[in-house]
Amino acid sequence: MRELPPSHPFDDDKLKEECGIFGVIGVADAANFVALGLHALQHRGQEAGGIVSHDAEQGFNSARRFGYVRDNFTKASLMETLPGPLAIGHVRYSTAGSKGAVIRDVQPFFGEFAMGGAAIAHNGNITNANALRRELIERGSIFQSSSDSECIIHLMARSFQSNIPERMKDALRRVEGAFSVVAMTRTKLIGVRDPLGVRPLVLGKIGDGWALSSETCALDIIGAEYVREIKPGEMVVINASGIESYRPFEPVEPRFCIFEHVYFSRPDSIIGDRSVYETRRQIGVELAREAPVDADLVCPVPDSGTPAAIGFSQESGIPYAMGIIRNQYMGRTFIEPTEQIRNMGVRLKLNVNRALIKGKRVILVDDSVVRGTTSIKIKQMILDAGAAEVHFRIASPPTAWPCFYGVDTPERGKLLAANMSEEEMREFIGVDSIKFISLDGLYRAVGEATGRNAKCPQYCDACFSGEYPVRPADMIAKGFELKAAE
Amino acid sequence: MRELPPSHPFDDDKLKEECGIFGVIGVADAANFVALGLHALQHRGQEAGGIVSHDAEQGFNSARRFGYVRDNFTKASLMETLPGPLAIGHVRYSTAGSKGAVIRDVQPFFGEFAMGGAAIAHNGNITNANALRRELIERGSIFQSSSDSECIIHLMARSFQSNIPERMKDALRRVEGAFSVVAMTRTKLIGVRDPLGVRPLVLGKIGDGWALSSETCALDIIGAEYVREIKPGEMVVINASGIESYRPFEPVEPRFCIFEHVYFSRPDSIIGDRSVYETRRQIGVELAREAPVDADLVCPVPDSGTPAAIGFSQESGIPYAMGIIRNQYMGRTFIEPTEQIRNMGVRLKLNVNRALIKGKRVILVDDSVVRGTTSIKIKQMILDAGAAEVHFRIASPPTAWPCFYGVDTPERGKLLAANMSEEEMREFIGVDSIKFISLDGLYRAVGEATGRNAKCPQYCDACFSGEYPVRPADMIAKGFELKAAE
Amino acid sequence: MRELPPSHPFDDDKLKEECGIFGVIGVADAANFVALGLHALQHRGQEAGGIVSHDAEQGFNSARRFGYVRDNFTKASLMETLPGPLAIGHVRYSTAGSKGAVIRDVQPFFGEFAMGGAAIAHNGNITNANALRRELIERGSIFQSSSDSECIIHLMARSFQSNIPERMKDALRRVEGAFSVVAMTRTKLIGVRDPLGVRPLVLGKIGDGWALSSETCALDIIGAEYVREIKPGEMVVINASGIESYRPFEPVEPRFCIFEHVYFSRPDSIIGDRSVYETRRQIGVELAREAPVDADLVCPVPDSGTPAAIGFSQESGIPYAMGIIRNQYMGRTFIEPTEQIRNMGVRLKLNVNRALIKGKRVILVDDSVVRGTTSIKIKQMILDAGAAEVHFRIASPPTAWPCFYGVDTPERGKLLAANMSEEEMREFIGVDSIKFISLDGLYRAVGEATGRNAKCPQYCDACFSGEYPVRPADMIAKGFELKAAE
Amino acid sequence: MRELPPSHPFDDDKLKEECGIFGVIGVADAANFVALGLHALQHRGQEAGGIVSHDAEQGFNSARRFGYVRDNFTKASLMETLPGPLAIGHVRYSTAGSKGAVIRDVQPFFGEFAMGGAAIAHNGNITNANALRRELIERGSIFQSSSDSECIIHLMARSFQSNIPERMKDALRRVEGAFSVVAMTRTKLIGVRDPLGVRPLVLGKIGDGWALSSETCALDIIGAEYVREIKPGEMVVINASGIESYRPFEPVEPRFCIFEHVYFSRPDSIIGDRSVYETRRQIGVELAREAPVDADLVCPVPDSGTPAAIGFSQESGIPYAMGIIRNQYMGRTFIEPTEQIRNMGVRLKLNVNRALIKGKRVILVDDSVVRGTTSIKIKQMILDAGAAEVHFRIASPPTAWPCFYGVDTPERGKLLAANMSEEEMREFIGVDSIKFISLDGLYRAVGEATGRNAKCPQYCDACFSGEYPVRPADMIAKGFELKAAE
Repeated sequence: MRELPPSHPFDDDKLKEECGIFGVIGVADAANFVALGLHALQHRGQEAGGIVSHDAEQGFNSARRFGYVRDNFTKASLMETLPGPLAIGHVRYSTAGSKGAVIRDVQPFFGEFAMGGAAIAHNGNITNANALRRELIERGSIFQSSSDSECIIHLMARSFQSNIPERMKDALRRVEGAFSVVAMTRTKLIGVRDPLGVRPLVLGKIGDGWALSSETCALDIIGAEYVREIKPGEMVVINASGIESYRPFEPVEPRFCIFEHVYFSRPDSIIGDRSVYETRRQIGVELAREAPVDADLVCPVPDSGTPAAIGFSQESGIPYAMGIIRNQYMGRTFIEPTEQIRNMGVRLKLNVNRALIKGKRVILVDDSVVRGTTSIKIKQMILDAGAAEVHFRIASPPTAWPCFYGVDTPERGKLLAANMSEEEMREFIGVDSIKFISLDGLYRAVGEATGRNAKCPQYCDACFSGEYPVRPADMIAKGFELKAAE
Repeated sequence: MRELPPSHPFDDDKLKEECGIFGVIGVADAANFVALGLHALQHRGQEAGGIVSHDAEQGFNSARRFGYVRDNFTKASLMETLPGPLAIGHVRYSTAGSKGAVIRDVQPFFGEFAMGGAAIAHNGNITNANALRRELIERGSIFQSSSDSECIIHLMARSFQSNIPERMKDALRRVEGAFSVVAMTRTKLIGVRDPLGVRPLVLGKIGDGWALSSETCALDIIGAEYVREIKPGEMVVINASGIESYRPFEPVEPRFCIFEHVYFSRPDSIIGDRSVYETRRQIGVELAREAPVDADLVCPVPDSGTPAAIGFSQESGIPYAMGIIRNQYMGRTFIEPTEQIRNMGVRLKLNVNRALIKGKRVILVDDSVVRGTTSIKIKQMILDAGAAEVHFRIASPPTAWPCFYGVDTPERGKLLAANMSEEEMREFIGVDSIKFISLDGLYRAVGEATGRNAKCPQYCDACFSGEYPVRPADMIAKGFELKAAE
Repeated sequence: MRELPPSHPFDDDKLKEECGIFGVIGVADAANFVALGLHALQHRGQEAGGIVSHDAEQGFNSARRFGYVRDNFTKASLMETLPGPLAIGHVRYSTAGSKGAVIRDVQPFFGEFAMGGAAIAHNGNITNANALRRELIERGSIFQSSSDSECIIHLMARSFQSNIPERMKDALRRVEGAFSVVAMTRTKLIGVRDPLGVRPLVLGKIGDGWALSSETCALDIIGAEYVREIKPGEMVVINASGIESYRPFEPVEPRFCIFEHVYFSRPDSIIGDRSVYETRRQIGVELAREAPVDADLVCPVPDSGTPAAIGFSQESGIPYAMGIIRNQYMGRTFIEPTEQIRNMGVRLKLNVNRALIKGKRVILVDDSVVRGTTSIKIKQMILDAGAAEVHFRIASPPTAWPCFYGVDTPERGKLLAANMSEEEMREFIGVDSIKFISLDGLYRAVGEATGRNAKCPQYCDACFSGEYPVRPADMIAKGFELKAAE
Repeated sequence: MRELPPSHPFDDDKLKEECGIFGVIGVADAANFVALGLHALQHRGQEAGGIVSHDAEQGFNSARRFGYVRDNFTKASLMETLPGPLAIGHVRYSTAGSKGAVIRDVQPFFGEFAMGGAAIAHNGNITNANALRRELIERGSIFQSSSDSECIIHLMARSFQSNIPERMKDALRRVEGAFSVVAMTRTKLIGVRDPLGVRPLVLGKIGDGWALSSETCALDIIGAEYVREIKPGEMVVINASGIESYRPFEPVEPRFCIFEHVYFSRPDSIIGDRSVYETRRQIGVELAREAPVDADLVCPVPDSGTPAAIGFSQESGIPYAMGIIRNQYMGRTFIEPTEQIRNMGVRLKLNVNRALIKGKRVILVDDSVVRGTTSIKIKQMILDAGAAEVHFRIASPPTAWPCFYGVDTPERGKLLAANMSEEEMREFIGVDSIKFISLDGLYRAVGEATGRNAKCPQYCDACFSGEYPVRPADMIAKGFELKAAE
């Protein structure tokens, strides 16, 4: 039941955003809006989803399910159990918790406090969750999940503050890491971003009500107007009478996740007033300037390489073409036929446009290289179809470090770029050339005209640079070694 | 259970291919290959699928299921019930039969004859099925389905011929219409195309065995080599010792379905030695020549408009851009929230790239216009996002006549082009301009350098021209009026 | 999905009735009544059930499902698809057909004829089905099931008669064996019993309408009044204007199945004006007279041995007690724990009342012994609980011959009584004594004061006597040897 | 999915035991034994079940499911997730918690403590749960369920004791009410009964391991030997080296629930060295002495009235007969046919043996009368079948007070006997006579030769006497009024 067709043909070789969050207040049947918002955020987490709503008569109600939003939160029988004008929701990949997926790890989490209940959903990762958990258990808290997010709600339960927003401030000040939070009490919708603002959170207006969302594309689906981003370190508390803004944390320079631009966010979302699609196209333009090559066709690796491929084609003048076609119906695990089919897994998802590729020099544009395993498979398909040359152009710098801020990354030893030079990667993958955009080129594409400020980088780019803006305490306790100071 | 996310965002406003067929002989566990082939043909029919296999020990086995191939024919428990080196399969949209989908209408059909059993699967439509059915019932045949295909198997059962290929010839000579057939006996795989060759059927080689398929993309997925097309009016009988070719019908000039080029076939399939993708790109080129317009962006209506949009951009020099983003997770029917969301149905599937579109003059390239209802919705989304101008360019001529050869078309009164001139359509849809490729332009794009031969057209283009190469007898009996002779 | 908790704790060692049939005409929503009737007949067939209804507007509708009536035909969504004032239904064990259960083998069968459709459901077995089937296939009929019942509908389709009742007469005259049939056209409900009347069929009155049922207990559940039995060899045709009775067959002396009294029918049904419960109690009385034994307790093997155990206790004066308790929740296959549990299968279903049994001399009353395997298990449970003596008393004569008239019996070699004398059976099972009621005793208990008429037995008792009133032609063709004439 | 066929034909008019508990230590694959044990205890709770196991390598694992044990805990795929030599389980009716059944309310509950985890399952009711819960929430505990049992595990988490058995003692000393508990740590199986011993708990030996169970019938199913009852107020801690017994509570006179004898326990269980079946038969004997009546037949209301009916028949000499037959397949809610069927609900479950009842004076023996609604329906069925007289004999005293110790009872105003005299009940039900066994008679039947000791009753009989051995604090806080002191 839980095996789902992956969203990307090579999900097993991509970084995975762990969560999307959404909340609505001040509209009838808020849970229906949340269901739509989560559907639009499905790319941020496909394993499971949950919604909590509150209704004056029926109190808090909750539903958490494995599988797609469209398969669960579209049934009248379920949605009727989630009444009221206030609701929050969550979609997730696997959590930072235990490997086996269990429904009790699915957010939002709900807790009943002395002054009433609260529900909370969270995108990111708490880097001192293990230590906090140990301390809470020693004092008698009982954890129901293996999720790092549950710490927040136990810290809130034990706070001496007399209202929930204050309790949440208390709790979040104990927490380290990168996180965006949407939470709700019986009457309030709350949004928070960590001091660095690593993960996104935006505010929208819908009729007389308000919405909080990981991305603007989810405001579009419910017809909400995009108002602004929640600021790094900001906490907003929204109720019938309006929005209040707080600053519970010490102020620091923000470090938004640059990989949201490269891959995580949907191309139709807006970040920092720019279309994500346009940023990605611009990465392709930069890449064509940095790493030109003589060829016949520019082909995207579908679908995430498409905008950069368009940009590369436009800058280079080499025609853009759909050399690889994606099967719209994807595939789970078919039974392998007795006669061995080479690369069957890939064939279920992609097919090469043979008549087009044959005899051509092909530039393949992909968004990133993680383990390199699928780059090899794609190269082989292209060669099998008779391509004369294969050149990879990658719309991000080499991914050489794991992310500890809410993105599922292989351990460092499995990251191709942590272990090989560019030339070694070229040989390993077996192509005529491979080039990654430079870190400065990427910064230019996202709008930093002078590139990266090495002293105080404008973004979190730890996965490329190894410079972690928040100390990953739990991982260091488990033996992770930081990059040696230079 | 049967409601499936449609393959195309506007499936309710597209012509629908009714079937895909696939067969394999001479490989171990043939049914696994058929499952893969049907997965690759899923775009030809999403409602249901079926596989029949034959094994020397266990005889014929059959499984028919509603839903996607990937959701049914991937389970070991099911596939183990389909052993043997010979299997055929079928995917379908709704049938020509009764409205309520019932499993007994799902192909392949199986019948036990005096000299052994046979199974048959069919793509197309038998235009004299009603008359044949009436006659067979009067003689005591009992129909189990409402499908037109079942006539063939009853005609075979009543043939006086002593082997199944001969019985099939007997049967098919009684049948009128457009059809490609794959069938199997205990030892033979059989493929047939109707005399005009309206529907496709290709032959592939897999190891020591053979495959028959609606399209070449399904040969690719199993690693089979594309050999050739089955010829119009040809019947091939394949067994352990090789292929025999027969010509059971009176020879006529072939009339392949031109809409296979425009929309039905997958872009990575090959028809008549040309990539379907390349043909569609060429339609865009022709369209840019026939109907140029000054604009800022060329955007495809995803996904079927993409190749023609690329061609239009390349010919016109106007930049290609992804102005409309498709939600990869599609959507069934979400609960409509209380606060009305305008065009919610569309929002579940598509979102406009607002930051890109705002203030731009936009050319939208779509493959066809059927009822026009979704053209209006898309136009509105683009205008809501602030586009300065909207121009539609359609990669097919106006669809003014229903298809009776295996494609699900609205009745004539509901076809926009049957009731309006181009200028009326422009006003109705509410855009700055709308232009369709000419019939001659389409013929040029598919490779007929001198365009359409009006005396003896090279293709079946009845949906555009109203010239039906086979008399639709059943429909005429129900009151359909042919185009008046000119 | 298809594995169901058996109705009797030792279903694997019982003869199984193969079918129950039910039909209603002249009441609104007839299918709901049929669902209730089938629920009351569930003991006659648990594997699958089906209902066909007819409505003036919507024509014939059909639903066939594996599993219990209560799990399928209670859903409004399903029952709404079966409208109209006329419906028939069927429950079945495994069919006479192929081993693997497939839905197309589930009755009622439906066929469309030249003058309209008809549906048919059947209890019994056609002893010349193989021969008929072969002949029909040779003439071009296509069978959809492996069920013997389908022959009837093909014979009807090929009849030259101009209405369905006449076609049915034509068909049934070709058929040999034991059968009760309910059938329906668009306006008529039809009931037939074979000339010998082996299988039961009764008529009831419900409001202005009528019902046909295998047993009277199903009339009770819908509040219908029991009118009379359909007579052996009678055909009734019921419509708006009343009932017509026909005699399509040559008259012969009737031979009702005596095992219906012993085990198949429900104890609250009435056969031949006597309560089945009372008949079974009377068997216990006869048994106590024929085979008395000194003991402390009379215990039934639940539940089918209960009435005879009550009779035995009342006649003998030995106290009746529930020495074996049946688990009301039955059990499918639990995972066998690593530490071997002896007779786990039995324990899932039954438990001995240890405190009651310990040290006692126990008479166990069971309805029949087929293979003897479960008699051994029960004996062991009783001994393990500390019984001093164990005496079996069996409420039927030794079952020494298979039934070919619609009851699923092991082949002769597996019938204990076909291979052992009574004393050998006692030793094999390992009890202090075992006694079966005599054939004459059984006839007396069912009301034949002078016992069995050996020249012309009043009942079909082939399973005890080996005297088959209808020649089992198909089985003889397969090698079955009739009892040598004496 | 959650609607299940009830175990008793009139479950809606019966008191319902809320739980059964079972635990095993020292055998391989302990969870399989627990599944079997829970299957045997299914009559104590049909809504849901859960199992927690512990394995040295994989730690604690848990599975909780709605529905029957046989439908969930029989699947290898599930049972393989519950490895290890130590496991506990639980079946339940609805809980004391909120009305809507949610899986998080299903036991066993699990908590991780500072020194390791523990799981706990509980039969009974904590009468001060509301107060405890309020206090725990104020201190920051977060409750995941609405179950009263969860208090115990939070009290344990907050104990300052350094091992789990001591923490459990701490917790249970804070708890008021009636409860039997099975719990487990990583290495220990723990069993506790409340000081009064209201709910049952027995100890068994299985190979080298041990089992704890609500009833002995569940020891039988796994082949365990019954050792002894856990004593009121006793706590046993079992591990590899044996059993330790503790007495954590102040000693008081025990008050076992007398209704376990009357109805809750299975007839094949042993309580206080007596067969429950035999006790119930003896109740029938006492009843025949206390309330004789001249009649033709003694019929049980199936199935729970059967033993008392046998006793009544034996003492009175009036023949025992199955006048009412139970449908073995029970029924959920069928669609009510348009033509009204009187008492359809009853007909789905029971049918009167008309031919037997007609013209007879019938004594109906039932175990209890709660609301009286079904007594009326049964009376009507018997009269409709033509009975001359109907006499009810009830194997328990009038049920006039609700139970607060783990049994689901209607509120007092809905208990027939709380509002009517015996004569009023006779008139209300409409029978010729109705008699209940006296409280003294019941005490005699359970083995107290001199009847009830009014000063210090030997059993908890609050449902009959209104004398509550533990003050129902939460209910009194909600307004329940105790019986006025006499």
